[in-house]
Amino acid sequence: MKKIQSALISVFDKTGIDKIARKLHKNNIHIISTGGTQKHIESLNIPVTSVESLTDYPSILGGRVKTLHPKIFGGILFRDDHSEDLEEIKKYNLPKIDLVIVDLYPFGETVKLTEDESEIIEKVDIGGVSLLRASAKNYSKTLVVSSRNNYNEFISYMEKNNYCTDINFRKKYASKAFGITSEYDSQIDSFFGVSSGEYPQLRYGENPHQKAIFKGDLDKIFDKINGKDLSYNNLLDINSAIRLISEFKSTTFAIIKHNNACGIASCDTVLSSYKKALMSDPLSAFGGVLITNEKVDEDSANEINKLFFEVLIAPEFDDKSLDILKEKRNRIILRMNNFILDKLSSKKLLGGYLQQDLDTAENKVENWSVVTETKPSTEQIVDLEFANKIVKHSKSNAIVLVKGNQMISSGVGQTSRVDALKHAIEKAKTFGFKVEGSVMASDAFFPFPDCIEIASNAGVHSVVQPGGSIKDNLSIDTCNKAKISMVITGMRHFYH
Amino acid sequence: MKKIQSALISVFDKTGIDKIARKLHKNNIHIISTGGTQKHIESLNIPVTSVESLTDYPSILGGRVKTLHPKIFGGILFRDDHSEDLEEIKKYNLPKIDLVIVDLYPFGETVKLTEDESEIIEKVDIGGVSLLRASAKNYSKTLVVSSRNNYNEFISYMEKNNYCTDINFRKKYASKAFGITSEYDSQIDSFFGVSSGEYPQLRYGENPHQKAIFKGDLDKIFDKINGKDLSYNNLLDINSAIRLISEFKSTTFAIIKHNNACGIASCDTVLSSYKKALMSDPLSAFGGVLITNEKVDEDSANEINKLFFEVLIAPEFDDKSLDILKEKRNRIILRMNNFILDKLSSKKLLGGYLQQDLDTAENKVENWSVVTETKPSTEQIVDLEFANKIVKHSKSNAIVLVKGNQMISSGVGQTSRVDALKHAIEKAKTFGFKVEGSVMASDAFFPFPDCIEIASNAGVHSVVQPGGSIKDNLSIDTCNKAKISMVITGMRHFYH
Repeated sequence: MKKIQSALISVFDKTGIDKIARKLHKNNIHIISTGGTQKHIESLNIPVTSVESLTDYPSILGGRVKTLHPKIFGGILFRDDHSEDLEEIKKYNLPKIDLVIVDLYPFGETVKLTEDESEIIEKVDIGGVSLLRASAKNYSKTLVVSSRNNYNEFISYMEKNNYCTDINFRKKYASKAFGITSEYDSQIDSFFGVSSGEYPQLRYGENPHQKAIFKGDLDKIFDKINGKDLSYNNLLDINSAIRLISEFKSTTFAIIKHNNACGIASCDTVLSSYKKALMSDPLSAFGGVLITNEKVDEDSANEINKLFFEVLIAPEFDDKSLDILKEKRNRIILRMNNFILDKLSSKKLLGGYLQQDLDTAENKVENWSVVTETKPSTEQIVDLEFANKIVKHSKSNAIVLVKGNQMISSGVGQTSRVDALKHAIEKAKTFGFKVEGSVMASDAFFPFPDCIEIASNAGVHSVVQPGGSIKDNLSIDTCNKAKISMVITGMRHFYH
Repeated sequence: MKKIQSALISVFDKTGIDKIARKLHKNNIHIISTGGTQKHIESLNIPVTSVESLTDYPSILGGRVKTLHPKIFGGILFRDDHSEDLEEIKKYNLPKIDLVIVDLYPFGETVKLTEDESEIIEKVDIGGVSLLRASAKNYSKTLVVSSRNNYNEFISYMEKNNYCTDINFRKKYASKAFGITSEYDSQIDSFFGVSSGEYPQLRYGENPHQKAIFKGDLDKIFDKINGKDLSYNNLLDINSAIRLISEFKSTTFAIIKHNNACGIASCDTVLSSYKKALMSDPLSAFGGVLITNEKVDEDSANEINKLFFEVLIAPEFDDKSLDILKEKRNRIILRMNNFILDKLSSKKLLGGYLQQDLDTAENKVENWSVVTETKPSTEQIVDLEFANKIVKHSKSNAIVLVKGNQMISSGVGQTSRVDALKHAIEKAKTFGFKVEGSVMASDAFFPFPDCIEIASNAGVHSVVQPGGSIKDNLSIDTCNKAKISMVITGMRHFYH
């Protein structure tokens, strides 16, 4: 526990500072401040040491530079367990600062209130962020309070602990400070990025009544060689398309709608892959996002041109294919660059960010176990692998049916696995496929043997699934009775 | 265009600096530097002015404080169109700094390489971030280069423009700098947050082979009063549950699986609402996330207790209900607090962030237009509104069927709207509901009249949809022929 003896306070919004300043003063904590905060605390008849008197340097440039001085930052950043640092504290007469309270200039609020850019820019806090970051870095001795939301908790903690702090409390508050500065700079980044044209401001978000931007550099990912501006929903689908196609090495074509593949096939050529992908679900393909991992040639372009679609992505296009495809001005044609796929996902929700490693692990056939009496044939293993790659990129719960490197149908995004399977079987029939002799992939285990029963009755001959249910043996028994094969991968692929 | 005359360079990784320093020197640009960068440039026989000689202040605390001095920050931050600032430049003999090149200490990389916390903390860059942010703020005169990835583009630009910069180029680079600092502080936030216990490190992500954390404060959202740790997938479902339930003012109960409602109903009591919600799809409800907007009492608890579920969320629980519900130790019971729902969504993808306002707009009945000869009854309007609120929070494409404030079924997450509708009809029958007399909501318009035909054949009596298709009139004609009513809201609700 470290006793607090001095505090630097620099706040834009003075709310709540009266109470804190009085308590600090009452507990003989020396207050350092500057500008408006200093005047505010002095008006409460509480003594304050000005930053300027410590640094012997005035506030300059209309207040743009006030606290950025080695005496202040040295007083925050010195390590109290380093003898060299302690010697320098003496040598340069640096103040020891144990507590830093900052309320940043309200950048985000100002952006909402005015379009006057010089007013907005003055609200980009430089000194305040530097104070927060320095004191957070040195949490081993300094406590940082970075938000008015924490004042009450901070005061109760102080009162309870007699104005001493323990390291874990200081570290938690350091984390909060970096959370604040990260969000703050993200807001500035958005404003500067949109107003400079660095970031595309999308026409709207998922729906016309939602505003949206993309904060990134799409030129790294692809060259847009034709078509209208990309929409929010296009970007979601393009992301799904690129991640899906990255699973396949041989010539493959996929059609994406609402972030799921509605058609996908691997075949000798782009043309034949496209034709087979379209067969999976020619109805959903309407207005879809198309992607292939090989060069688009004239023949493929002629065939693809018959479909109404939104986006076509490929690593290469020959000149003749482009002549054909560019006939429609709005149609978006993207030449994919070599780039590194994202490794992390992050979603803003519940007042925070939910972050995870993306599901980039390769689900290798050599790690699979055949658990049934009937073994899958070599051709079936190829199809099982193909199906498993698709189910990995389909929204959960998902079931994928494959025959000869062609997805014959899928059931996706369902609250029940049985429904996903039933939809897949029904859909295969709708578009003229025979389920007989197909293979099935499931993104997660079967809690009951019902899915295996339904699948084998429909004619599925082989199944791939992660396994791991306490009732796996019931599914295995059902396979054995039906004389179909099943492999267990040990790797679940939920995806939402 | 502003001519560059002086540059401050401070880089951790010296790669690429040789070329830049030589070109700057050749173009008579005065170089200011400190520490390792200074030595590196001097070793190229290029003259460098040290930061220390400008500030008359030494580098202190083992290099923790080097550039944080008003002379340096004044030289970056002065406004070259403000006469007062220009006078202060003279008065305090501040150097004019036009270009700032910084490569930050590699925090993220260090975290991957070592677990030695003091080594990690030394890699929290304070001075570098302050330099980047100050020069980015003052993009009206200063150019900031914040990443080695931009060196090539920066050099070509300089060569082409004779070492002059225009304001939009400077602003784009300012945006890049804030993007860098925001990401940098987000990484520090993650590290400090997890290691201090401020942020829960989840057991795993969507799947066991993915690592995950939640960066936020769940205590603001709810109090956990029973059960195991929340999982990644729990948090996704809890988010969906809370957003959905926030639409309803009267007593309502919803059951969520894979981010979609598999059951929901509004009725007199929590008990009756729960029973009706469960009826929608008792199969999917297994292992689901349950939510209500009223106090859970003993009767409801007894009934809910019969179901195997993962999470139950409510604003209040009476003591007897808790005695019952807490019997199972793993079961998660959350008491929801009053909090402000997120207004923005942000998803990391395609090397950037896709951000939008969330779909929080109220789709008000008074703004709806009845477009058919048959008008919906008062009861039907109530059901249409209920259905439309559910479809807004269901994954697209989505169709919801409702009768008497009870969802009788839905089709969600489909690549085709026809499939979503077919699934909804089929599912209603599976669980013993009659579609006859129900109402239907669609999250987006009908491009063709096929859905209306299928729905009216199944017995749907009234339809709500956003409208906006060029073929709306075909759907309206089909309604009129079938003597069913349709309202158009003008507000689409895609949700992925």
